[in-house]
Amino acid sequence: MPRPSVRPQLVEAALDQFHTRGFHNCSVDDITKAAGVPKGSFYNHFASKDALAVEALQQYQQRSVWRTTDDADRPPLARLRYRFEVMRDVLTDRGYTRGCLIGNMGTELADLNVAVRAEVQASLAYRSTATTELLRLARERGELATHLDPEVLGPFLTNAWEGVVTRTKVCKSAQAMDEFFAVFDQLFGANS
Amino acid sequence: MPRPSVRPQLVEAALDQFHTRGFHNCSVDDITKAAGVPKGSFYNHFASKDALAVEALQQYQQRSVWRTTDDADRPPLARLRYRFEVMRDVLTDRGYTRGCLIGNMGTELADLNVAVRAEVQASLAYRSTATTELLRLARERGELATHLDPEVLGPFLTNAWEGVVTRTKVCKSAQAMDEFFAVFDQLFGANS
Repeated sequence: MPRPSVRPQLVEAALDQFHTRGFHNCSVDDITKAAGVPKGSFYNHFASKDALAVEALQQYQQRSVWRTTDDADRPPLARLRYRFEVMRDVLTDRGYTRGCLIGNMGTELADLNVAVRAEVQASLAYRSTATTELLRLARERGELATHLDPEVLGPFLTNAWEGVVTRTKVCKSAQAMDEFFAVFDQLFGANS
Repeated sequence: MPRPSVRPQLVEAALDQFHTRGFHNCSVDDITKAAGVPKGSFYNHFASKDALAVEALQQYQQRSVWRTTDDADRPPLARLRYRFEVMRDVLTDRGYTRGCLIGNMGTELADLNVAVRAEVQASLAYRSTATTELLRLARERGELATHLDPEVLGPFLTNAWEGVVTRTKVCKSAQAMDEFFAVFDQLFGANS
């Protein structure tokens, strides 16, 4: 019987280490120790810490509410609000620590690592497009109070949320998220 | 005659190094080298790299448009928009690199360093309060199209901008900033 690969353990450990400590603040040694695998096994599976960062980002995005929610039967604005609510609840349950791995990696690495930058860019584009699409559906159904263009609002809300998450991490309180929802509800007339 | 202190050189070098490379990605050695001073002189002036990070943040805030602009004779909404325009122009001139040192430090260090977190929190609070105050003045003059509460909008805009800066750094384009101004103008009816 072949030995089970330690690859998934390495990805899990990296997700946790990068998210709690940051990319430059943890080493391959930290990650293999956290994974409980020999350091030597790392390079059997990944060309570099950078390559593992890209894979951690992909996993993070795959597991996010933007990829996992099956809510097509609900009204579009409620679907959009629900996604932000899930992200709020996750952040609250963690005591406002860690923030968003996508925003963290983007901030720390966008100028330094082309592959990580591309992955962060793709993740944010996915969320922007999904937001724009839900806003467009809401407008079609006459649910949208604002006259603002969904094509502008989608990425704006996505970016605003990243800033809100940073502020939440800095202030260790729900206030920035509460303000986000207050603006969201006034702007869109949602009250779910 | 006493020798000139190398303290200001260390602060300048730290500002540049932290901003271009991040906190954990540069060492005291990198900073003293960039400052052109002996490594041994560092601890004559700073207890730690952490202490220097706090001082770099204070300098960054002191030099920002939020502290240096004397524009009390202009209408409040034009004053507010101008501050974001200045930040946009700085980011554009840098080829969309670096981002905001406050947001960078907050993202990288809020969970790891109490003193840096406090300084980031103070900087963001200052900008939020200034934004709220200008929105309140705008409302008093009947300049504000939206009914949203300036107390909520001030911090929301401050946080949104931080997310916009991260997106700009990630995408290396002005698009996120253009979207921010489009929302700003529609929300407030400003068109300066």
